[in-house]
Amino acid sequence: MFARRIAAFAAAIARIEKSQCQNRNFSNFDLHGSSSIPGSKLRFIPKSGTYPLGFTVGSVKAGIKSERSPEPDLVLVASDRPSCGAAVFTKNEFPAPSITVSREVMQASKGHGLRGIIANSGCANLFTGEPGLRDTRKMGEEAANHLAEQGEKSSVLVMHTGAGGQRLPISSIIHNLPKLRQNMGSTHDHWLGAAIGMLTTDTFPKLASWTFTLPSSPGVEFRLAGITKGAGMIHPNMATTLGIICTDAPVTPSALQQLLSTAADKSYNCISIEGDTSTNDMVALLANGAAGGYPVDFDSSLPHQSEDFVALQKMLIGYMAELAKLVVRDGEGATKFITIRVRGAPSYPAGKRIASAIARSVLFKTGVYGGDPGWGWVSVALGYSLADTEFAGQGIIVPGLTSICLIPVDGSRALKILDKGVPAEIDQTLVEKAMEQQDVEILVDLRDGQDNQDLEEAVYWTCDLTHDFVTVNGDFRK
Amino acid sequence: MFARRIAAFAAAIARIEKSQCQNRNFSNFDLHGSSSIPGSKLRFIPKSGTYPLGFTVGSVKAGIKSERSPEPDLVLVASDRPSCGAAVFTKNEFPAPSITVSREVMQASKGHGLRGIIANSGCANLFTGEPGLRDTRKMGEEAANHLAEQGEKSSVLVMHTGAGGQRLPISSIIHNLPKLRQNMGSTHDHWLGAAIGMLTTDTFPKLASWTFTLPSSPGVEFRLAGITKGAGMIHPNMATTLGIICTDAPVTPSALQQLLSTAADKSYNCISIEGDTSTNDMVALLANGAAGGYPVDFDSSLPHQSEDFVALQKMLIGYMAELAKLVVRDGEGATKFITIRVRGAPSYPAGKRIASAIARSVLFKTGVYGGDPGWGWVSVALGYSLADTEFAGQGIIVPGLTSICLIPVDGSRALKILDKGVPAEIDQTLVEKAMEQQDVEILVDLRDGQDNQDLEEAVYWTCDLTHDFVTVNGDFRK
Repeated sequence: MFARRIAAFAAAIARIEKSQCQNRNFSNFDLHGSSSIPGSKLRFIPKSGTYPLGFTVGSVKAGIKSERSPEPDLVLVASDRPSCGAAVFTKNEFPAPSITVSREVMQASKGHGLRGIIANSGCANLFTGEPGLRDTRKMGEEAANHLAEQGEKSSVLVMHTGAGGQRLPISSIIHNLPKLRQNMGSTHDHWLGAAIGMLTTDTFPKLASWTFTLPSSPGVEFRLAGITKGAGMIHPNMATTLGIICTDAPVTPSALQQLLSTAADKSYNCISIEGDTSTNDMVALLANGAAGGYPVDFDSSLPHQSEDFVALQKMLIGYMAELAKLVVRDGEGATKFITIRVRGAPSYPAGKRIASAIARSVLFKTGVYGGDPGWGWVSVALGYSLADTEFAGQGIIVPGLTSICLIPVDGSRALKILDKGVPAEIDQTLVEKAMEQQDVEILVDLRDGQDNQDLEEAVYWTCDLTHDFVTVNGDFRK
Repeated sequence: MFARRIAAFAAAIARIEKSQCQNRNFSNFDLHGSSSIPGSKLRFIPKSGTYPLGFTVGSVKAGIKSERSPEPDLVLVASDRPSCGAAVFTKNEFPAPSITVSREVMQASKGHGLRGIIANSGCANLFTGEPGLRDTRKMGEEAANHLAEQGEKSSVLVMHTGAGGQRLPISSIIHNLPKLRQNMGSTHDHWLGAAIGMLTTDTFPKLASWTFTLPSSPGVEFRLAGITKGAGMIHPNMATTLGIICTDAPVTPSALQQLLSTAADKSYNCISIEGDTSTNDMVALLANGAAGGYPVDFDSSLPHQSEDFVALQKMLIGYMAELAKLVVRDGEGATKFITIRVRGAPSYPAGKRIASAIARSVLFKTGVYGGDPGWGWVSVALGYSLADTEFAGQGIIVPGLTSICLIPVDGSRALKILDKGVPAEIDQTLVEKAMEQQDVEILVDLRDGQDNQDLEEAVYWTCDLTHDFVTVNGDFRK
C-alpha cells in the first residue's frame, strides 16, 4: 500500500517534469493522478539521500485529513535507541497543545532518552481547550509506548499542523499506530513519505540529507536528514512551520540545544512568508550517536568551544538554512524567492532587524511581484526598520552612505540601483532581465565604500506577495 | 478659473451620487468629466464647513503633476497674523527634505511666528540629495516672503508628497506663487480645493471642520479645520500621510506641541494601510488665536493641566481620529474599514501594541477581504503581538481569559466568535450579515468577565488587503 503510494508519487513527478506546468492547486497535496506539484519546484525535491543510522521514519493515512485526501497525515520518526533531543518553539502566546506538551517533554527529559517524534497534518488541535491538551498528551504517550523497550521510560515529542478549532481524531490516530510502525524504514522513499505526511497547503515535499565529518573523528561519516513544511496560513486552516531533523552524530543535550537555537536564529528565524507567526511552529533535532565518534559537548563557561562544536554549528546553520529556504520557496501564492542581504551594520542583530523589516514590507514584496527592483521601497523599509527598536538613533542608517544593489542570479555583475542615497543610473534592460528570474537578491550596503569585511552579513529570505496569495488567503477558492 | 474647477468638481460629485458606482480608478484625481470618486466614499466629503478665522487657503496647478492631470498640485495655507505652530514627523530615517526643512523651521522658531504651510503633491522630492534639499528650502523661504509683512521675519512649513527620485520643478513653483496667493480665501470651496491639491493616489478629498468652546471662555466659539491625504505608496510614487490643521483658538507653542503629539499618538499613529511608514509623513497644527479668548498653556511641571488644556486635548484626539480614519477609508484597494478595539490590557501602550499587530496582520486583513470573521487569525496575531517587546512574558495574554467579538455596524448585539480561548457557537447568518458591511469592528477582550471598566481601550483602524491592492502596488495598471 505504502509502496504503491510512493510509486504513484514518483509517476506524478515524472509526468510533471515533462509538462513543466506552473499551476498551483492549493488543494491538498495529491499523490495520485495529476499531481499539483509546480514544475518549477521539482528541482527542490531530492531523488535520493543518505540517511542517519538508527533512525526509521514512516507515515500513514489516519483519517485526520478528509477522506478525499489521498496522502498520509500521520508521521512517526523513531530512533532505535534512546536519543538526545533539542527543540525550539514558537513565541506565540496562544500555543497549540503540541507546543505545551513538547515543552513539558523537553523539561522533564532534559533532552535525554527521547525515542522519537510523532507529527500530524490536517489538524492543528488549536483552541480545543483541556480536552485537546489531553488528546495531545495521549498521542505522545501512546507513541512512546510503541517505541520504548520493555520497562523503558521513554518520551516522544508531538507536532500538529492543519486546521484550528477542531479536535484530533485521537482514537483513529491510536488505532493507526501499529500500521504506522509497520510502514517504517530508513530508505529515501520512507523519508519522502514522511515529508509528504506533514504537508498542508504546501505544493511539494521538503526533505534534505547531508553527510559530514567532525575534526575529532575524521574517519567517521555522520549523516543528517530532515523534513520540513510550510508555508503560510490558510483559512480555516492554520498552517505552520515544522521541522524534524535527525543525526547519527553523538551530541550531548546541552550542546544540541545550543546548536539548534543558534542555527534556528540564522535559518528558520530569518524567513518570512507574510509576517504571521503561527501558534504551532516547532523545530526539533534528535542526535542518537549511532554512527559512533566522540560526543560533542558544550560548556557554557568556556568562551571557545571545541573544534567539533564549532564545525557542527557551522554545518547546522547551513543545513537548516537549506530547509528553511524550502519553506520560503513554497510560500503561498509566491512566484519569486527573494534574498535580502544587509551589509555594514554594527552588529548581526541590527543587520537582521533591517533585513527582516524589508522582508516584511508589503509594498516591497508586492513590488517585486510586479517586476520592480524597488530601490524606493527597499529604502523606505530600511528607513523605518529601526524605529522603536533598541537600535534607533544610533546613526546606523545614514542615507548618504547607503547603497542598494540588485544581484542577478546568473552571477553577472551587481546592478547598483541606489548609490549612496541617490538613485543610480540604471540599465533598464539588465534590471528587467534580473527581475524576470525566479530568484531575486537585494544587497543593502549601509557603509558603501567603507571597509566592512569584518562585519557579519545578515541574510533574510522571503517571497513576493501576489494576487494568488490574496486568492488563497481570502478563501476565494470556495 | 478656480471657481470653474470647483464647480466641475461639484457637478462630478452630483453625477456620481446618482450612479453610486464603486469603481476605483487609481489614476489621478479627476475634477473634470467623469470623476473617479467611488460612490461609497461620497458621504465622507463634507458639503459645507465652518472655518477658522484669520486663515486663508488656496491651491493652484503648478505643473508638478503631469500636464494631463487637471487638479491643483500646490497648496498654501496662511494665517493673516503670526501664528503658533506644532508638528509631528515620520520616524523614517530616510527623511524627505520637507521633513528636514520643517524640523529646522520648528527648531528655529520654537513654534512662534509661523505664517503658514506650503504643500505640494506630485513630487516627494525624495533621494534628490543636496540639490533637492536646496529646492525645499527655497520653496519655504519664497512662500514665507509672500506671506510676511514688510520687515517681518516669518517662516513657513513645507510638505511634499508624490513621486520619489525626481526633483521639484522649483522655478515653476515659485513662478506660480503670485497666482496661488490670488486664489486664496476662507470659503468651503477654498478648503476643498486645498484638500484636492494634496491628493496623490487618493480617490476622494479629505477635509473636516469642527467648532468648540473652552471652559474659560464659554461664550467664544472656536473653529478647527484640517485637510489630510493618504493612502499607501504606489510605484513609482511614494505616497504619504500629510495633515494640516488650523484653529483660531489661542494656544502657546508648548501646549500646542503637547496637544498635537498626544493626539497624533491616538489618531494618525493608530492607523495602518499596509504597514509601511513613509519618508514624508508629517502633521502640522497652527493656532493663530484670531477668535480671542484666553491662551491655553501647558506646564510640564504640573501633573494636572488647566481645564482648557484637558478639554482641548480631548477634542483634538477626536478630531484627528476623524481625519486619520478618512485616510484609512481610502486605503489602496481597500473594500473594508476595520476597527480593532482591545480591552483589558494593563496599559494603553500594551493594548495599542496588540491592536497594531492585528491591524498589520496580512492574513487577518486578507481574511476580512474574503468575508471571514477571523477568530483564528485575530488570535494568532494576538498571540505573537507582544513577542520581542517590553510587554513579553508579563502574562498579559492568557488564552483562557481571552474573548473576541465581531461588533455589527448596525448596533445589533455583539457576536462572540472566541469565548475564553475556545471558538464560540456562531450564528453564521448573523456573522455573514455583519461581514457584508463596509465597516467591520473586532473587539478583543483580554480579561473577559472581569471588571476592566477602569482600563483604557486601545483602538486601531485599518483596511482589508485585496486583489486591487496587489494590482495597484504591483503596478499591473501599466
